[in-house]
Amino acid sequence: MKSHTVYRTFETAERREFVRITEDVQAAVDEAGIAEGMVLVSAMHITAGVYVNDWENGLIADFGVWLEKLAPSGLNYRHHQTGEDNADAHLKRTIMGHQVMLPITAGKLDLGPWEQVFYAEFDGQRRKRVVVKAFGI
Amino acid sequence: MKSHTVYRTFETAERREFVRITEDVQAAVDEAGIAEGMVLVSAMHITAGVYVNDWENGLIADFGVWLEKLAPSGLNYRHHQTGEDNADAHLKRTIMGHQVMLPITAGKLDLGPWEQVFYAEFDGQRRKRVVVKAFGI
Amino acid sequence: MKSHTVYRTFETAERREFVRITEDVQAAVDEAGIAEGMVLVSAMHITAGVYVNDWENGLIADFGVWLEKLAPSGLNYRHHQTGEDNADAHLKRTIMGHQVMLPITAGKLDLGPWEQVFYAEFDGQRRKRVVVKAFGI
Repeated sequence: MKSHTVYRTFETAERREFVRITEDVQAAVDEAGIAEGMVLVSAMHITAGVYVNDWENGLIADFGVWLEKLAPSGLNYRHHQTGEDNADAHLKRTIMGHQVMLPITAGKLDLGPWEQVFYAEFDGQRRKRVVVKAFGI
Repeated sequence: MKSHTVYRTFETAERREFVRITEDVQAAVDEAGIAEGMVLVSAMHITAGVYVNDWENGLIADFGVWLEKLAPSGLNYRHHQTGEDNADAHLKRTIMGHQVMLPITAGKLDLGPWEQVFYAEFDGQRRKRVVVKAFGI
Repeated sequence: MKSHTVYRTFETAERREFVRITEDVQAAVDEAGIAEGMVLVSAMHITAGVYVNDWENGLIADFGVWLEKLAPSGLNYRHHQTGEDNADAHLKRTIMGHQVMLPITAGKLDLGPWEQVFYAEFDGQRRKRVVVKAFGI
């Protein structure tokens, strides 16, 4: 069994931003030289997520509106008594998920036709990391 | 390390439908001949999900009502400007999750007494795939 | 490839309770003697979850309030026609997630600075299990 780990750093221009990273993950798989296995893609910060969905700008905007409705910013969260103002970011990332595991078959991410991998930032404009760990044979 | 991949195709009669697939996943594990390891079960389409929960019809109905409340159909989603009408399906599958990883111990899915695996279709009546990838020893 | 499985049993004092288990998972990794790999942490009961987020009491209280808003208890759920009263627990655990996969690098859980692993109980005060399965080299 082989194992290969890389860390990607993101510093988004906006506080909230969705970044497509499918090619980055494939690049890590290529580096790993793994033909059969899986790759974990997991946010290392707790106000960001990783998810698989459509690369379509309208839907990406819909996600933003929807998350703000389900997990609004600006409420009087208890977490804000610590001086933070980002409780909603913790909740939003919980809905989107903080990690995915992608199958690797014949050296390629084994994804459906519309599956794209995204980094979802909810409290950005600073350096944050994602771990990409592939294993297999 | 062994690796074994199968693809299951679903074409549900209803647009929204939850299908129990625990036995299908166990069958893939049996085929793989894996005694110790894990199996990934992941929807390859972005308007469907895979989740673990109770096989009880009342609760399954509750999930449907609840998802419609949290992620309503029929809203004026921006995604619909592309001609699609299924933005809610993308959101509903996000809440349910699009994949699970199940432990394999002594050749069997290592599940609790009430754990059942489901395929959750939110935009069906057409052929869609799930990847089932087992690995282990 | 090595594989090592342990089961942790929880019996929370409260019906709803979030328990930090990061050290327990690291202990299972230590026992496994795995330097490079991953560990799955997965609730075996369908009214509990496992998630990664902040170990801050204000945020933990915020999660409780938020989950009660998104998935209220006390509604007339169809699941309750079976005699159960815990449909909301099934929904709440769905939002939080029922499992995580943690990378192991150089023998340690490869977590970001604020990442902590939690067991999330939504129908406790009785014995329930979590499976912790590590694999790697």
